[in-house]
Amino acid sequence: MPVVVTKIDRSAQPLAAELAESGVATVHEAQGRKGLMLSYMRPIYSGAQIAGSAITISGAPGDNWMFHVAMEQVREGDIIVFSPTSPCGDGYFGDLLATSAKARGCRGAVLDAGTRDVRDLTAMGFPVWSRCISAQGTVKETIGSVNVPIVCAGAHVRPGDVIVADDDGVCVVACEEAEAVLAKARDRMAKEEEKRARLASGELGLDMYEMRARLKAKGLRYE
Amino acid sequence: MPVVVTKIDRSAQPLAAELAESGVATVHEAQGRKGLMLSYMRPIYSGAQIAGSAITISGAPGDNWMFHVAMEQVREGDIIVFSPTSPCGDGYFGDLLATSAKARGCRGAVLDAGTRDVRDLTAMGFPVWSRCISAQGTVKETIGSVNVPIVCAGAHVRPGDVIVADDDGVCVVACEEAEAVLAKARDRMAKEEEKRARLASGELGLDMYEMRARLKAKGLRYE
Amino acid sequence: MPVVVTKIDRSAQPLAAELAESGVATVHEAQGRKGLMLSYMRPIYSGAQIAGSAITISGAPGDNWMFHVAMEQVREGDIIVFSPTSPCGDGYFGDLLATSAKARGCRGAVLDAGTRDVRDLTAMGFPVWSRCISAQGTVKETIGSVNVPIVCAGAHVRPGDVIVADDDGVCVVACEEAEAVLAKARDRMAKEEEKRARLASGELGLDMYEMRARLKAKGLRYE
Amino acid sequence: MPVVVTKIDRSAQPLAAELAESGVATVHEAQGRKGLMLSYMRPIYSGAQIAGSAITISGAPGDNWMFHVAMEQVREGDIIVFSPTSPCGDGYFGDLLATSAKARGCRGAVLDAGTRDVRDLTAMGFPVWSRCISAQGTVKETIGSVNVPIVCAGAHVRPGDVIVADDDGVCVVACEEAEAVLAKARDRMAKEEEKRARLASGELGLDMYEMRARLKAKGLRYE
Amino acid sequence: MPVVVTKIDRSAQPLAAELAESGVATVHEAQGRKGLMLSYMRPIYSGAQIAGSAITISGAPGDNWMFHVAMEQVREGDIIVFSPTSPCGDGYFGDLLATSAKARGCRGAVLDAGTRDVRDLTAMGFPVWSRCISAQGTVKETIGSVNVPIVCAGAHVRPGDVIVADDDGVCVVACEEAEAVLAKARDRMAKEEEKRARLASGELGLDMYEMRARLKAKGLRYE
Amino acid sequence: MPVVVTKIDRSAQPLAAELAESGVATVHEAQGRKGLMLSYMRPIYSGAQIAGSAITISGAPGDNWMFHVAMEQVREGDIIVFSPTSPCGDGYFGDLLATSAKARGCRGAVLDAGTRDVRDLTAMGFPVWSRCISAQGTVKETIGSVNVPIVCAGAHVRPGDVIVADDDGVCVVACEEAEAVLAKARDRMAKEEEKRARLASGELGLDMYEMRARLKAKGLRYE
Repeated sequence: MPVVVTKIDRSAQPLAAELAESGVATVHEAQGRKGLMLSYMRPIYSGAQIAGSAITISGAPGDNWMFHVAMEQVREGDIIVFSPTSPCGDGYFGDLLATSAKARGCRGAVLDAGTRDVRDLTAMGFPVWSRCISAQGTVKETIGSVNVPIVCAGAHVRPGDVIVADDDGVCVVACEEAEAVLAKARDRMAKEEEKRARLASGELGLDMYEMRARLKAKGLRYE
Repeated sequence: MPVVVTKIDRSAQPLAAELAESGVATVHEAQGRKGLMLSYMRPIYSGAQIAGSAITISGAPGDNWMFHVAMEQVREGDIIVFSPTSPCGDGYFGDLLATSAKARGCRGAVLDAGTRDVRDLTAMGFPVWSRCISAQGTVKETIGSVNVPIVCAGAHVRPGDVIVADDDGVCVVACEEAEAVLAKARDRMAKEEEKRARLASGELGLDMYEMRARLKAKGLRYE
Repeated sequence: MPVVVTKIDRSAQPLAAELAESGVATVHEAQGRKGLMLSYMRPIYSGAQIAGSAITISGAPGDNWMFHVAMEQVREGDIIVFSPTSPCGDGYFGDLLATSAKARGCRGAVLDAGTRDVRDLTAMGFPVWSRCISAQGTVKETIGSVNVPIVCAGAHVRPGDVIVADDDGVCVVACEEAEAVLAKARDRMAKEEEKRARLASGELGLDMYEMRARLKAKGLRYE
Repeated sequence: MPVVVTKIDRSAQPLAAELAESGVATVHEAQGRKGLMLSYMRPIYSGAQIAGSAITISGAPGDNWMFHVAMEQVREGDIIVFSPTSPCGDGYFGDLLATSAKARGCRGAVLDAGTRDVRDLTAMGFPVWSRCISAQGTVKETIGSVNVPIVCAGAHVRPGDVIVADDDGVCVVACEEAEAVLAKARDRMAKEEEKRARLASGELGLDMYEMRARLKAKGLRYE
Repeated sequence: MPVVVTKIDRSAQPLAAELAESGVATVHEAQGRKGLMLSYMRPIYSGAQIAGSAITISGAPGDNWMFHVAMEQVREGDIIVFSPTSPCGDGYFGDLLATSAKARGCRGAVLDAGTRDVRDLTAMGFPVWSRCISAQGTVKETIGSVNVPIVCAGAHVRPGDVIVADDDGVCVVACEEAEAVLAKARDRMAKEEEKRARLASGELGLDMYEMRARLKAKGLRYE
Repeated sequence: MPVVVTKIDRSAQPLAAELAESGVATVHEAQGRKGLMLSYMRPIYSGAQIAGSAITISGAPGDNWMFHVAMEQVREGDIIVFSPTSPCGDGYFGDLLATSAKARGCRGAVLDAGTRDVRDLTAMGFPVWSRCISAQGTVKETIGSVNVPIVCAGAHVRPGDVIVADDDGVCVVACEEAEAVLAKARDRMAKEEEKRARLASGELGLDMYEMRARLKAKGLRYE
């Protein structure tokens, strides 16, 4: 059953830069609060903010063989997304794989597993989001799949979907929805700019969002 | 039953600056090792060290409506403390709420839940301690309470209690005990300064604290 | 039964500097992927990279008395390794103990428990790896042992074993295997340098490691 | 600071039997969805369903000394409730303490810690709710308090509060609210009986609770 | 965006009884070790063994409104599968909903959340697999979706997929693969019967599976 | 480095039956509160109470090949003890392996990993203690070791050590200490019998253990 799919739909990639700039929280809201990975997914260093097309990898626990297979499928602007077939925190990804990925234009990696060589990865400026940091080595014995749909940290990811990642976590945008999501994200950011100014001047959300009547109707009592 | 209490006892607030400087570990010791929140409460960035009067919020899982209600109750020197009515890691608090809080003189926030927009919050210098970081959005449907006693991350917090927070975590000091606690904290710091010098010079704690006889009496054997 | 062993085998200590430089991931691989502590062991600040001989401590939950006893056994180049007799996240180690440890030449501490005063420890440049950060104070009532074999975060540690710790975690090298491990680590690093260059130039791991035939034999299919 | 309070308000004890029969889920609803302990609190065997007045204990991690002190305070119809001063899963309570407790009329125990001798406790019919089962022994070195307010598994408990516990978990009812809560619980059970019959006959909640119009107004779409 | 899909593909339902009898471990193996939910999903009582077509529900944390909407979609032989839009352990499902579900022919429920009224559910013989048991009540304020694809406890579930659940956990079989999976499961069970007899007679797996040569080739050494 | 050690010291096996009867809590106390596995190790069914000589297995995550190798080493009265080389909850052990183990006289299995086929194992009366229950299948690709020292669930286990397991968990007794431990366990049980009778008659532990003076000296205050 293991398979490597060599052609994936990267049609949303031109929108990636702007989605990255919008950030995970805004994109997640813009698409109706879906697609967010679980909060245990943390960046190995602060400040990275990326987006790109998902190259998905499914592999056995403690076995990182398919990362090498996946590397051949990586194109400029892609992001590697890995999920083990059962929960595993081993260090699947380190500086050698990152060197290879970077050479092929990969923007970062997202693993529902462990990462290692974090000092080197930080020095290289190659961002990784993972469930933990672990030096634990892996074997190369069992084949898996590349570019098939996977569940990664609670989110469904199809190859070519846009991955947006920053200090708030990781969000998945369906390739075919990326344009609509970006439009809503832009709109949201514009509105937030205005709200931010009003709130900074001391105006209350209670008034700005006209919440008082509804709160009263719900029975909120002041004492 | 939900209620907003508009008058709280902030009489300990003048002591907040000095309690903040004492730090969580010292304050916790000074008050007899109580009031500490669970260790999963972590700051979103290192180095912040604050204290202030608690504005408490109790709200439903996935619903941050009461933050807006609470904001109106915030005065200069307060700290927002939130606990969901059942465990929840959603992103209740982000840069817009922080903008509003900052405009009202709030010194920081403590959530037994998730925070988002951590890059913006860091840039603003608005410190937050939370159980996790999550972009997950919330709704505004269910009313809760503001300024009632709550349990937050294992600690009992009453409105007006002094919250002390730094890189070591978060500690709660009862409003009426703050003065006594500060006195003991000062005393403790003075003594620690002296101990630090002696230890730095190579003196052993075994001798400085006169532990050898008691260890021997307990049966400790050297081999 | 509690005992303090005063003589331990530090014969591997001359190799510590070079093992530290090799790093946890390399050392772990060089010794056949064993000796790694669980990934919940994290440094209190980034960038530290140390190795030294283990001074082991076994103590009761919530009781840090034996740290004072252990301090007398610390020699230049040692690393303190602590494991509670049952799981405990209290703050066993802080700036006073670190001051004492530093005065005696200790290079760092590893605790399957909590650490506190992390701001001070960071300022001192005294690195600690621990399961959590907690201000929770401890008592001095129950005796334990110093320099006996312990299990720390899933790894077996004997006094005098070499502890290697960096941003990737903590690894234990048996004293008598340190020389062989270092030789393999050097060899590994030399080979990785070459691999890194080839991968950076765009060569695929698939080709460099000659994986294609074996993948095909295993049944990997391209689509 | 440690203290044993010898007089507590057990005025709600006559209501305990009926609160026990109502069950945790009903009582929790009846009192406005508050007072529930965290869901990691599990019974050591199925089927127990008890209520009684809380004898509260606060003690050090790994130290069960105060259970012996508390035993003297136990009266017919009480339930022992323990919380360690920092998280601990040691086996604080076993068959000897249960023998003593039973002899004094204690109905069960609730520990935010570990229990042991579960086979014996089960044979005795002495129910315990705890965070884990552990044979780990404890010391008797540090004094704590009996019958002071504590936080146990996320819930605030004052001595004399009614503890209700069954297969669904543990709920705390404030002594002074017990009568009102019981009245609402009775009311709720009566209404549920009727609802149960209608649902069993195939009537939909959508119709019985008249939800269709509100769902439509909220924008629910059928496809 | 919330939607209720009223027509789903239940074409695999005739195979459910036999898939249930095969059991989760066999079905999981037969379909190439995929589709298994995470191991935190546990039955509320032992011994249940069911299979049926998935009615999927996606709802907000702490909000069980959509269970009532979903109930109208339940047909004889279905199984309710729920996942919250962010992690939540509240008690979404209890005896009233189970009464309604049972009246409509539902065989059981699977929730990546909490269940309550477990004593009643057990008495009714209505099996539930869930991440925890919790009496925590929920609200009815936010609409969600019924019969859309969801991720539940790490597994992707589409409406109509066959859910197989027993004491080993929960496995999802794609509707269109159910027939092929069942064929392989039957085959596997037949072979296991034969193996079981040989192993019971004392034959070693080493010999039965002809492992000795391969182990030797891999370098396994006896001492 | 992987190796199978074929000769192990089973000299403590004649004591196993009596150690099993003493139970985990008593044995753990009798040997000075050491050797206990972490409390996440739970039996798949209640009531089993066994002891026997450890056959240890170390294997890769998601790979149960070495169980087959270990089976050849099992003798009457042994207990299989497995620990993965990195944390893994896959279902390493099920009814076929149990059939084989039982045929060779094995008394049970202890896995810091997952078990499956729990219904069958229960029907067979073959007890297993494990960190979780999971149907997740494993591969047979990587060799490991049999009968080498391992760390299992936080406890150090050498081949031939006595494993004692019951509803309270799992405890390891060093082969050479088994006789002394058993003597102390017998002594402890005799004394507990007497204590139990006194406590059952209403005598307080405070008096029986003469605790009042020491509590007063420590400063305990009654109010």
